[in-house]
Amino acid sequence: MTAERVEVKQKVLSANDRLAAEIRADLTSRGVLCLNLISSPGSGKTTLLEKTIDELKSKLRLAVVAGDVQTRNDAERLERHGVPVEAIETGGGCHLNAEQVSKSLSGLGLSELDLLFVENVGNLVCPSSFDLGESMKVVLMSVTEGEDKPLKYPAAFRRAGALVLTKIDLIPHLQFSAERAVENARSINPELEVFATSSFTGEGLAEWLDWLLEAAERKRSG
Amino acid sequence: MTAERVEVKQKVLSANDRLAAEIRADLTSRGVLCLNLISSPGSGKTTLLEKTIDELKSKLRLAVVAGDVQTRNDAERLERHGVPVEAIETGGGCHLNAEQVSKSLSGLGLSELDLLFVENVGNLVCPSSFDLGESMKVVLMSVTEGEDKPLKYPAAFRRAGALVLTKIDLIPHLQFSAERAVENARSINPELEVFATSSFTGEGLAEWLDWLLEAAERKRSG
Repeated sequence: MTAERVEVKQKVLSANDRLAAEIRADLTSRGVLCLNLISSPGSGKTTLLEKTIDELKSKLRLAVVAGDVQTRNDAERLERHGVPVEAIETGGGCHLNAEQVSKSLSGLGLSELDLLFVENVGNLVCPSSFDLGESMKVVLMSVTEGEDKPLKYPAAFRRAGALVLTKIDLIPHLQFSAERAVENARSINPELEVFATSSFTGEGLAEWLDWLLEAAERKRSG
Repeated sequence: MTAERVEVKQKVLSANDRLAAEIRADLTSRGVLCLNLISSPGSGKTTLLEKTIDELKSKLRLAVVAGDVQTRNDAERLERHGVPVEAIETGGGCHLNAEQVSKSLSGLGLSELDLLFVENVGNLVCPSSFDLGESMKVVLMSVTEGEDKPLKYPAAFRRAGALVLTKIDLIPHLQFSAERAVENARSINPELEVFATSSFTGEGLAEWLDWLLEAAERKRSG
C-alpha cells in the first residue's frame, strides 16, 4: 500500500471510530445489546437470525440492520418474522461502516429495544476492521468452510467475543473435526464463547438463545 | 466514500491496471493461460486445484500463485502435488493485486508454462475489482452457500468467464437447486461457462479438465 493510501485509510478509520464510539455510548445508555455478525457469504447468518427472532421475539424487543452488497433479500426475509429491519445496500462496498449504521438506527425506535443485530456483508476479511459501535462482534463459520479458517482469517476471530459454528448437521457428510476448528479458533482467541448449531435441525440453538437472553439482561441492568 | 478516498482508489486501480496489462501481454506472448480463481472462504479452491494438478500435470506444464490473508497452508498443500507454487501472504489484505502477482511471477519460469492458476484470497467481494493480468477470472461457489449468491455478489459473477459449482455431492443434504443457482448466475452474466463438480466424488471434473486442456491449447496456438 502506498503511504498516501495508508494515510487516507487511517483518516477513514479514525472518523469511523469516533462515530462508532458515539453509537456505542447511545446504545449503552439505553441498555441495548448490539451484536455485529460477521462471516463468509453463505455461512447462514440470515437463517440463524430467522430462528433466533422466532424464539426470542416474545421475550426481548428485537431489531435488525441487514447489510448486503446488492439486493434487499435478507432484509425482506427477516421482516417476515415480525421485527423491525433496516436494509443497507452497500452497492459494491465490502463491509458496513459506522455512518451507514448510524443512519439506519434513526429509523429504529432505539428506546424500545433490548437486542439489535447488525448482519454485516458476507466477507470474512474487511468487516472485522470496522467498528460499528456494537457491544460485541460475533463470528459465524459454517462447518463446510473447513477447520483452518480461523488461522487463515484471524482478525475476525481475534476481534469477536463469540463464535457460532453453523450447519453442524452436515458434519457426517464432511471431513471436518469440530474439535480442531474450535482449537484453531481458540489458538487465535482463547476467550471465545463457542456455540455449535444447526438452524436446520435446531441442535445447539438453546445454548445460543440462553446466552443471548443473559447477555441482553446484563446489558439492560447496566 | 469521501471524494478524497475515491480519488486515491482510482489512482490505485489505474496503477494496478497498467501493471496488469503488462503481465497480460507478457503471459500472452509466451502462450500461457492464466486463470484467476475467486470465491468465498472455504468454497474449495485449493481442493479443486489439487485434483486438477493431479490430472493435468502429465499433459500441461502447470504452476500456481496462492494468495492468503495469513498462513502458507494452501501453497504447502499444493506444492506436495509436484508443481511450482509461489505463496503470497497479504497480511490482512483482502485481495491480491497486480504488483504482488508480478513479483511472484519472477520466481516462476514462465517460458516453461502452459497454465498458471492464481488462487485469490477467499473473498467474494474485493478480488473481483482487481485485474491481475489473468486471461480469465473463474468464480467458484459451493452449493452450501445458497442459490442467491450471484444476485448478492454480482461483480464476481459478471467479470468471470466460468463458474465452478463445487461440493455438489452435498446437494442431497441441502435445500439447494443447482438449476436456480445457475439461472441466477446467468441472469448476471449470460455468457458464463458452468461446471458442476465434486472434488470428493470426482463428479463433473472431466468436463472442467477438458475445458482447461482446450483453453490452454487455444492460448498456446495464439
